[in-house]
Amino acid sequence: MKLDKIVGDRFKERPADCVIDSHALMVRGGYMKYVANGIYSQYPPLKRVTKKIENIIRQEMDKIDGQEVLFPVVMPAELWEESGRYTSIGNEMLRMKDRSGSRIVLGMTHEEAAVHLVREYGQTYTKYPFMIYQIQTKFRDEARPRAGLIRVREFTMKDAYSFHTSQEDLEAYYEICFEAYLRIFARAGIPEVVAVKSDSGMMGGSVSHEYMLLTPIGEDSIAICDDCGYSANMEAAENIIENKNQVPKADLVKVETPHKESIEDVCEFLQRQVESSCKAVVYQKNSNDEYIVVFVRGDMEVNETKLRNYIGEEIHPAVITEECGLTAGYIGPYNLNTECIRLFDNSLKGAENLVCGANETGYHYTGLCMERDVQNVEYHDFSKILEGGICPNCGKHSIRISRGIEVGNIFQLGTKYTKAMDMKYTDADGNLQYPIMGCYGIGVGRLAASVCEVHHDDYGPVWPISIAPWEVHICCLRPDDEQVKGVADNLYETLMNDGIEVVYDDRKVRPGVMFSDADLLGVPVRVIVSPKNLSENLCEIVTRDKSVAKKVPVEETVSAVKEVINQLFEEINSHCPSGSRSV
Amino acid sequence: MKLDKIVGDRFKERPADCVIDSHALMVRGGYMKYVANGIYSQYPPLKRVTKKIENIIRQEMDKIDGQEVLFPVVMPAELWEESGRYTSIGNEMLRMKDRSGSRIVLGMTHEEAAVHLVREYGQTYTKYPFMIYQIQTKFRDEARPRAGLIRVREFTMKDAYSFHTSQEDLEAYYEICFEAYLRIFARAGIPEVVAVKSDSGMMGGSVSHEYMLLTPIGEDSIAICDDCGYSANMEAAENIIENKNQVPKADLVKVETPHKESIEDVCEFLQRQVESSCKAVVYQKNSNDEYIVVFVRGDMEVNETKLRNYIGEEIHPAVITEECGLTAGYIGPYNLNTECIRLFDNSLKGAENLVCGANETGYHYTGLCMERDVQNVEYHDFSKILEGGICPNCGKHSIRISRGIEVGNIFQLGTKYTKAMDMKYTDADGNLQYPIMGCYGIGVGRLAASVCEVHHDDYGPVWPISIAPWEVHICCLRPDDEQVKGVADNLYETLMNDGIEVVYDDRKVRPGVMFSDADLLGVPVRVIVSPKNLSENLCEIVTRDKSVAKKVPVEETVSAVKEVINQLFEEINSHCPSGSRSV
Repeated sequence: MKLDKIVGDRFKERPADCVIDSHALMVRGGYMKYVANGIYSQYPPLKRVTKKIENIIRQEMDKIDGQEVLFPVVMPAELWEESGRYTSIGNEMLRMKDRSGSRIVLGMTHEEAAVHLVREYGQTYTKYPFMIYQIQTKFRDEARPRAGLIRVREFTMKDAYSFHTSQEDLEAYYEICFEAYLRIFARAGIPEVVAVKSDSGMMGGSVSHEYMLLTPIGEDSIAICDDCGYSANMEAAENIIENKNQVPKADLVKVETPHKESIEDVCEFLQRQVESSCKAVVYQKNSNDEYIVVFVRGDMEVNETKLRNYIGEEIHPAVITEECGLTAGYIGPYNLNTECIRLFDNSLKGAENLVCGANETGYHYTGLCMERDVQNVEYHDFSKILEGGICPNCGKHSIRISRGIEVGNIFQLGTKYTKAMDMKYTDADGNLQYPIMGCYGIGVGRLAASVCEVHHDDYGPVWPISIAPWEVHICCLRPDDEQVKGVADNLYETLMNDGIEVVYDDRKVRPGVMFSDADLLGVPVRVIVSPKNLSENLCEIVTRDKSVAKKVPVEETVSAVKEVINQLFEEINSHCPSGSRSV
Repeated sequence: MKLDKIVGDRFKERPADCVIDSHALMVRGGYMKYVANGIYSQYPPLKRVTKKIENIIRQEMDKIDGQEVLFPVVMPAELWEESGRYTSIGNEMLRMKDRSGSRIVLGMTHEEAAVHLVREYGQTYTKYPFMIYQIQTKFRDEARPRAGLIRVREFTMKDAYSFHTSQEDLEAYYEICFEAYLRIFARAGIPEVVAVKSDSGMMGGSVSHEYMLLTPIGEDSIAICDDCGYSANMEAAENIIENKNQVPKADLVKVETPHKESIEDVCEFLQRQVESSCKAVVYQKNSNDEYIVVFVRGDMEVNETKLRNYIGEEIHPAVITEECGLTAGYIGPYNLNTECIRLFDNSLKGAENLVCGANETGYHYTGLCMERDVQNVEYHDFSKILEGGICPNCGKHSIRISRGIEVGNIFQLGTKYTKAMDMKYTDADGNLQYPIMGCYGIGVGRLAASVCEVHHDDYGPVWPISIAPWEVHICCLRPDDEQVKGVADNLYETLMNDGIEVVYDDRKVRPGVMFSDADLLGVPVRVIVSPKNLSENLCEIVTRDKSVAKKVPVEETVSAVKEVINQLFEEINSHCPSGSRSV
């Protein structure tokens, strides 16, 4: 394709509203256009990238016996009521009424639709296992879309659903899918993606993994142990705390702490370590505003995901009113007489000599010993793991916190949906059973943006050849020179006829403009045809990633280009055990 | 793929709610499942069909320099307000609010999004012409979805938009696209599709064509002249009437017509021909309920599309109240003193001696002569063309009315959207101009169902090889016979390794079950491996369309199958001048 025919503008200035590089480059390079908050249109170069990603995903899903299907974007509310998620999901789900007044929703995930599709099909055990998937538009009404295609409201997603007759069978397939995902990311050019244990959130189920691309701009925090290889989303990582209590026990004493309402202020005022304090963090249930007081060691933070999972419903930070009986800034576990749910984090287990609120304005206690002073306590894990924390796997103080973008996730769902939606099969003994499900998702646009985020320089994306919008970019530096134009034209025709995807820049513009446009398109192999090189009968071949830069005789250029393409594909495939060239 | 692994059930009974054959067969064959009114999920066989159709469309769009893009399904209301369609389109457009209260709509077509995408890009004449297209989910909240995938609410559509600097350039490209559409339908196996002139409806613009697959189950009526080749959608076909007035003029006389309120009753009562009457049909504007009285010759019917286009806004059949001043059943053009819009159909031009209402309950006039008795009349075409009517092209009484399914449409939009949305370019002389647009649509699911509708028998679809879910279907008639199973297995492996799409039925079921399932899957080439044939060292090859039925030696089966596949593709391509094999 001729470069001057590509629909979309390329420009130099970094758009002010782009926080991350990939977003800025994809706007500057004519890849995407803002339509509304978290909603974008794709220009041809990005559509070419996402189509290739979709093809890689499709091939890998087909390889593991996935069958492609299509679910609707618009679904009746009744389908989501069957699973209970019509009410349990917050307002990320767009609910509306159609012209006849029927309640409908926009699909944000398709477990319900999947069960609906196969509920009759899967009535006997002989049909199992099977996996269905689709690549389809989804809509999640995110409160805070951000970072271009990283967190949007409308996106294309591959979502797959597997059905099994035993947990073992699910686990075996989960492993297969786990590997397929690694192949997908490797083939898309980001073999460095790591799989981490994750929280299952609104999906339900027990075991789940997220595939994380580690980058400082990621919005997820991941706890990693370099010693043993453990990794987990911070939301899922168990926080292990050992209380050493090196100071002897003291009596519980009420002390005046006027106008000291944060635990840091109180500790400073009383000259104690924050680790020797007990902090109260208050939430309310969304459903009935019931108060939930979570006590954690003063230096810890509450992990709201863990709390939400424990409570089993949506919560929000509390609004503490005068009538509620809680004394904001002075809440403590001793003598707390207000009606509320009290929860204790593991970090307080066995802790002694703590500073805590006295449930009275202006007063705290010192000397609180949990075992002695607070009765009937059950401890749970409600706090966030911290940098330098204890690895839940090997027990060393080796935890490091990294940021990452979640580029995929897989879940063992169990029977949550099949039970709720009454999908049953007859087993070999004639008994009715609920099938066990797994589900597996990848966001296509986010994957494209993530690759760009880790594969770019100041001048543009450096697309891996497997997902690049084109494979070869020809720059004809002096199209007014008949010989140069002739060689470039010929190269373009020959490569195109050989099935290679070529973008051809034969505009009458300065080389600087040509190269900066080429940088923005990020095509892996660049061929430069110029009078200077031609005077020596040479063409220049350089790769966008600078790994190749050479001059070859004109008549060998086509074969040299093909060789470089093959090298680049081989490099990609070398990170991917059973990878194959994307078609 | 093994047949017993295909997700979806096949069954014998015709579902009671299926009106047309293609719908019944696609439900019976495990192609689709009802989710809600006009909303379906696709099982793997249908998804395979629609994917192939999408690829054919993509190839043909790319051939005519189309560039694939992606627009959002969810769009902000503001975008549609720019074109004015946010208010002008009825409630087929789903309007709602997101969590922040912003008004959003679900895309039913993407002219606005297309202009939005290229408004900055297309600022100079040198960028023109260009065409962008997408293949994406659309939602139209149809009042009456029907006939399976023929008229649904959610569907996948290819919509293309071209931009030009002159009407001539648009027309030249329109011709190119016109041909590309014929290739698409031919490659999809329905070369018999005819292009007919159509009404441009809500799209705006002047010239437009619909591609019609003629079939009795179609919901469109098409006026065809077999003499000169003229064809047009009935909504667009001009209705030409010649009034002969063989009876001499009479005086206008008021006559009593008690309780005769329909024009047929009145004419019978007065012993006149219905052609010698003037009928009033009353509508109201949706916007302000203003009355519109349309007078047509008694034997004609009002074409609401023509009326709507003339009025320029939405209308509905009137509710005639006591206060409105109109005398229901007795409305006539003479002495009509009520405030309303009066419109006269061409069929009344020059008509004499007509029966018409007297605007007084129980009375009609006879002897109405339009020219003499009704002043200041402008005649327009508001009526439907009828079987045997006059061909607007050749003037003969040769019009035949056929039913058809609209499988595609193309529009010359003009500057409606670019003007409304202020998209301008600088021409070669430095003047600002509005680009001229064309748009081009094909519904993917409807095309699949249409092909099935004209290519099926009592037992299932007869898929053209270019869009069939698989190319070859192997029936292993006695999988318990080791030799049979060995030959069939080997055939399956060999064909698969050669890149041929094979479905393999090696279930232990009766041949009847095997064949009825094969008929429902409609795979073009069937290979039957049975003990009887094998005893003579033969395999049987039959095509679903019965054009081929032969026995070949086992060792020649693979090559014979490939030959049949090639024949079937050649047959398809022979109807398609520049067609090529779908990949």
